[in-house]
Parts: sequence; structure tokens; C-alpha cells
Amino acid sequence: MGRELAFIEALRALASDPAARGLTDDCAVLPFGSETLVLTHDTMVAGVHFLPDQDPADVAWKLVATNMSDLAAKGAVPMGVLLSYQLAGTEERFLAGLAEALDEYGARLLGGDTVSSSGPQVLGLTAIGRASYLPVPGRDGAQVGDLVYITGPIGGAMVGLEALREKGPAKSSLAYRRPLARIAEGQALAPFVTAMMDVSDGLLLDASRIAKASKVTINLESAAIPLACPPERRDEALRWGDDYQLLLTAPPELALPLPMHRIGVVGKRQEAPVLINGAVPLGSLGYQH
Amino acid sequence: MGRELAFIEALRALASDPAARGLTDDCAVLPFGSETLVLTHDTMVAGVHFLPDQDPADVAWKLVATNMSDLAAKGAVPMGVLLSYQLAGTEERFLAGLAEALDEYGARLLGGDTVSSSGPQVLGLTAIGRASYLPVPGRDGAQVGDLVYITGPIGGAMVGLEALREKGPAKSSLAYRRPLARIAEGQALAPFVTAMMDVSDGLLLDASRIAKASKVTINLESAAIPLACPPERRDEALRWGDDYQLLLTAPPELALPLPMHRIGVVGKRQEAPVLINGAVPLGSLGYQH
Repeated sequence: MGRELAFIEALRALASDPAARGLTDDCAVLPFGSETLVLTHDTMVAGVHFLPDQDPADVAWKLVATNMSDLAAKGAVPMGVLLSYQLAGTEERFLAGLAEALDEYGARLLGGDTVSSSGPQVLGLTAIGRASYLPVPGRDGAQVGDLVYITGPIGGAMVGLEALREKGPAKSSLAYRRPLARIAEGQALAPFVTAMMDVSDGLLLDASRIAKASKVTINLESAAIPLACPPERRDEALRWGDDYQLLLTAPPELALPLPMHRIGVVGKRQEAPVLINGAVPLGSLGYQH
Repeated sequence: MGRELAFIEALRALASDPAARGLTDDCAVLPFGSETLVLTHDTMVAGVHFLPDQDPADVAWKLVATNMSDLAAKGAVPMGVLLSYQLAGTEERFLAGLAEALDEYGARLLGGDTVSSSGPQVLGLTAIGRASYLPVPGRDGAQVGDLVYITGPIGGAMVGLEALREKGPAKSSLAYRRPLARIAEGQALAPFVTAMMDVSDGLLLDASRIAKASKVTINLESAAIPLACPPERRDEALRWGDDYQLLLTAPPELALPLPMHRIGVVGKRQEAPVLINGAVPLGSLGYQH
């Protein structure tokens, strides 16, 4: 973990460019002619980011969805993807899921590479989008007094993974297997937000990232956070990712263009970047990977 | 091999878009606002694409150079890269080589992802460029009567890898460890060529790709092909990649803007896509991966 963070910091210094936010902020934003490019890359490893025996169609779907979710948080319009594919003998199912996911998001398969390796399957996807609104939302714009919103409930992927491990009915694991990137929501919200990101690593951790980048403290109201799991598992759900809801901050006087869940407020920087009901959360904030 | 080709064909069908040439033609070409994007992705695996004990700085250099070479063949101006990095405990050397290579090509590190895995190191790089000339050179434009040119000698990477394996002096393996992408040459040549690609998998194989895509036969004159290895190894050098010279076709009446090696002519499609001194080459044409 320390090693990885040090590497990311070194990469970030190498990038040495405020526009090159991709290494810490998921997407890179790059003016390009008359338009603005939004770029992101996610890599997934069998046994780390997905179950080794998972249906490759679901793995392909998730690989696309995670990248699309990064584009969604920027209000970007998906254009295409480049795929890095390690052969595994399960190409047919993978392709089926890939086709479904690309169709869902209107993204084209532009290119990529295939390789062979003796190790666990490593899959990479680069997604290319076009900014629909400038400035492209970032993590660093939350202002004291802003309200904090989320597009929908969390905890669904958590119980979905459990259902998948227990070989429950297919529908019970859908939230984990087939997450949805909020592309339309991201585009609709981009003109209104002061900060936005997708919740991929846990609400508390991702909220702390906005708070740190914006040099504020986000105070979440526990009871206001919508759940897609039993209420007694709220504390776990706050630290669990993979639901890909959008988390955002906006001035209190703004009427947002979509029904949203208001889950907290932005305050001056206090002893911790994120508080729950005014208190510092106990333990880990989420999934650090 | 068959499996991989079938997958690539399936991916290609999925792309189902003449502009989406990336899966077979290395780069994707995408109109984007007032400009044209050129995109490519290469993945490298330890033990397959580089020696497991190779200096990570050289591996980083090559990862960048191979992608830049794909951009060069399109006459593109490098803009930036996204890196997929599997942690290996050798981050410091990797970063050193990465910084050198990005500096060489004026490309920015825009983003990426880091992962952990128990398998051989898998590294991916997506490179983004801007087309300097339209139409962007492809593989399918060679015309009967065109002359065939190459930017420089081949065989240097072949003897360089041997020197590296034999732990020879560092300089003797330079051509293999630190290949150069011909970015400036690609931009200068793009307005003059009917087809262009980089020689990454062997001159015979890559020439056959241009010939097949253009539905012609390329007849190479063996003695005219410049070598960076002993002349008795000419046949091997013709089948060895990694030198990253640019291979191109252009009308005979055109004076090219750079000194080039004229190595053959384009003729009507005959029994094979590529001939040497009028004969069908024996054995494998190059490195199929």
C-alpha cells in the first residue's frame, strides 16, 4: 500500500501538470482542438477486482462500467474504448458482455491489444469521452456551505457480491455483477456541481477525497444516506464501493435538475476530512487499492 | 494463436466500423471536434515482450517507444499517455525510464492505474496523439507502381537482444533496449505516402500486411534493404521486429522530404502478398503475437 501510494505520488510529480489529474482523480482532462477530451484507464486483475470463476460476460460489463462511471463523474459523453485483453480461453463470454456494455453506453471499440500470460488474467480498458460542460467537474471545488448529494442508494453491490459467492439467484447479485454508470445523470448535473466523483471505493473514502482536495470537511448525516441493504449494515455500506453512484456538492440555493438524496453539508476544514453526524468515523474509510 | 486471431476478428466485427482500425491496424483514428485523434494501446508481459530480469528503465522506455512508433506511422503528434502499471518492487527504475521516454517524445503522463498481481508483470500504455495530416496514413492505400521505402536499417534489435542475453557491453544492446520511434519522420512523410506502418513484427510480415490491406503484391529487393547486422544474417533480420523503422509506399514521381532507402516496388496482386527478388519467401514471415 505504502509502495503503491509512493509510486502514484511519483507518477503524479512526473505528470507535474494540473490538467493531468488522472492518476489521483480518475480522469484526465485535455483540451483538444475545439473540444475537451476526458480520458480514463482502469485495470482489473482476476482474484483482486473480480472473482476468478465469475462469468466473463459480467467481468467485461464491469470493466466497461467502471470506466464509464469515471466519465460520468466528469459529465462526459462516452466515445470509445481501447481494450487490453489477456487471453483466458473464455473469449466468447467476454465478448458477449463487452458488446452488451458498449451498446448500453453508446461507446465504440476503437482498438486495443491481446496478450498471453501464465498469471491471473489482467484486463485493462481506456475510455475516451467528450466533455459536455466546461469547466469539467473536479474534486477540488466544494465550498463551505454547499450541500452534499448522492444519486442513489449504496450497499447493493456489497450484498450482491455475497449473493454471488453463495451462488444465490442471478437477480440477487445483479447490483454487483452489472453496475450502472450514471452517464445521463453526470451530464445533467455537471453544470450545477462544485465537485463530483463516482463512489467506487466507498462513500466515506470518496467523500474524504473531495474534502481533502477542496480543503474542507464534509459532514454526512447517517440517517439520510439511502441504502440498498439492510439498515443494520449501514456502517459497512458506507465503506463499501462498487455501487457507482455519483457523489457531489452544490450550492444550497441551486435546484438540481434531478431528484437527489441530500446527505450532508460542507463545512470548514476540521480535525478530519469527513465526519458522520459530527463525529470522526471509526476504522477504515473504505477500499484502498 | 488461432484462438487469439479469432478473438481479434470477433473484436473487429464488434467494432464494425471502418474508422476503428486499432485492433488490426495498431492505431484508431477518430475525428474529434476540429481535430483528429490518433489512439493506440500496447500491452507487454514479462517473459513474453521483455526479459524478466531486464532493467525496468529500459522496459518503460520500450513501452513508450512502441506506442510512439504506432503514432509515428500515422504522422501523429504525441500528446500524452495513460499507464497501466502492475507493481513489481522496481518502481524507481521504471519511473526513471518512463520520465526519460516521455521527455524524448514530448508526451505527458495523463493518468492510469496501478494494480497488484501474483503473475508476471503486465504493463499497458495507451498513447494519444493528434493527426498532423489528413487523411491519416493507413495500410490500405499502396498502389501498383508505387515504390517501397524504409527509413533505416533493420536487424539492430536482433543483435541487441543477443548482446543483452550474453551480458555484453551496454552499448551493444542499445538498439534493443532503447528503440527510437520515428515521430519527426512520420510527420514529414505523412503527406507523401500512400501507405505507412512501423516495422514492429518483421519487415516481411509487416510488408505483407500493407500488401494484403492494399490488395497488391510488394516485391522487395533483398540487396537494397539496409542492415544493422552482419550481412549473412539478412534472412533472419527480414523476419525480426523491434527496430521500429517506418515502412512506406509512395508514387515513383514524388521526391520524398527525407533521405530514404528504396527497397522494392508495388505490383499487381500475385500468388503471395510479399516477394523477395521475385520469389515467395520461405518459412515464417515474422513475429506473430
